[in-house]
Amino acid sequence: MLVVGELINSTRKRIQPLLEARDGAALVDLARRQIEAGADSVAVNCATLMEDETACLQWAIRTIQDALEVRITIDSSNPAALQRGLEVHRGRAILDSINLESPRWSGLHPAIVEFKPEVVALPMDDQGIPPTAEGRLELVSRLVDGLTAAGVEPHEIYVDPLVFPVATDSSHAELFLETLGMVRSRFPSVRTICGLSNVSFGLPHRALINQTFLVLCMARGIDGFILDPLDRRLMANLVAAEMLLGRDEFCQRYIRAARAGKMEFRESGTG
Amino acid sequence: MLVVGELINSTRKRIQPLLEARDGAALVDLARRQIEAGADSVAVNCATLMEDETACLQWAIRTIQDALEVRITIDSSNPAALQRGLEVHRGRAILDSINLESPRWSGLHPAIVEFKPEVVALPMDDQGIPPTAEGRLELVSRLVDGLTAAGVEPHEIYVDPLVFPVATDSSHAELFLETLGMVRSRFPSVRTICGLSNVSFGLPHRALINQTFLVLCMARGIDGFILDPLDRRLMANLVAAEMLLGRDEFCQRYIRAARAGKMEFRESGTG
Repeated sequence: MLVVGELINSTRKRIQPLLEARDGAALVDLARRQIEAGADSVAVNCATLMEDETACLQWAIRTIQDALEVRITIDSSNPAALQRGLEVHRGRAILDSINLESPRWSGLHPAIVEFKPEVVALPMDDQGIPPTAEGRLELVSRLVDGLTAAGVEPHEIYVDPLVFPVATDSSHAELFLETLGMVRSRFPSVRTICGLSNVSFGLPHRALINQTFLVLCMARGIDGFILDPLDRRLMANLVAAEMLLGRDEFCQRYIRAARAGKMEFRESGTG
Repeated sequence: MLVVGELINSTRKRIQPLLEARDGAALVDLARRQIEAGADSVAVNCATLMEDETACLQWAIRTIQDALEVRITIDSSNPAALQRGLEVHRGRAILDSINLESPRWSGLHPAIVEFKPEVVALPMDDQGIPPTAEGRLELVSRLVDGLTAAGVEPHEIYVDPLVFPVATDSSHAELFLETLGMVRSRFPSVRTICGLSNVSFGLPHRALINQTFLVLCMARGIDGFILDPLDRRLMANLVAAEMLLGRDEFCQRYIRAARAGKMEFRESGTG
């Protein structure tokens, strides 16, 4: 299971000033806390810094990798910034994200050929995001063809079937789960991932919804999440679900996490 | 989704004296609280009362049904007690449980023909519980044949594929989920159910494990649970999962439950 920590993102109120001030200690601290909580990679997004985005992204990648052994998930809507981020990253980065929109595809193609990052791939083209599972599958097929032609191995592609808030249509989450199952059966060597927090937008108790959706995605065989690893209940659900799905021999990881006090749970009930 | 409240069970420390004293007010209160929390039926088990079991079971069924409009799930290892319970139950009871052990099958068969309860059916015979999904499927097939021959409709049969604690073998929960999927595809008109608490036996933070397992079962299409409905987080997970699986139009039930303060959640994180 690939867990990408999502917290270093300039759209978050406390992060933009940290990035503008180039506060390296605070940046590394936030990266470290996410890793200690279970993240395999930390995402960095500096999009709201506008013309300073590229320089800040490079600074953040270097600063984190100088302090910690960790892969960065480089997140930007700007292909040039992504390319420059890849240039300074040590080891295999994760590129978040590629899709089939013409400027994005052609803007990122050379960097993918050159740096061969793992990639998060979104079923989206110049016409937008298809409303049906079949439509998204068609785009996934084109993405997989294009990326493997560019030298990325299928198991280095993380397809995110894309989930919209259930508050706007109560079929959105199930459409995601259905598409996830279809991606897995038609492209068995490709991996799958979900940016977790979108599903709960606009509803009360978002953390509860995200935690529940994480377990539903795991039951359907997902390979990774982009999430808030400092949500201790969310990470506890992840560790418990891994155990219940038979991927934790002798329940060792679960018991270790419980003993380390990493779990958040709450007894409730009973009559 | 059928939710059976499991709390009226004489093996629970606070329940045995309540039953022995025939404390009708406390009994009805515990039934009412489970229903208000979302239970569709309440289970009654008086097994530890020994020779008083049958009389107590009949008293409990009558007392609850005199006060509340609710179906009872009659739970006993004693076929004679189950039969006498069915005799006093008004409307369709749920019988928990039938299996293929010879004395149980032949002891309960006449009552099933006479009262046609809905039944919880366990893949278990004189040789015990088969260790593989295929072995359990074979017993499910015989159970479905025998019960439909006795006049029970397939959709009135709730198959419990049986889960053992993951603490004793880390493949136990996944075996349950696999068997669940196979029952659903081979017997599409039969329903499925899970007695939830067994899976977590022997591990820390059992509530967390049960809550996570509930969501995994729902993702694989289960139709019912026997559970503690006063676990507010568990019921919140159930309502959230129903919404995320597309069974809650306009998220109405979720929002109503949240507004009624029925949800238990806890904000945690964030960096």
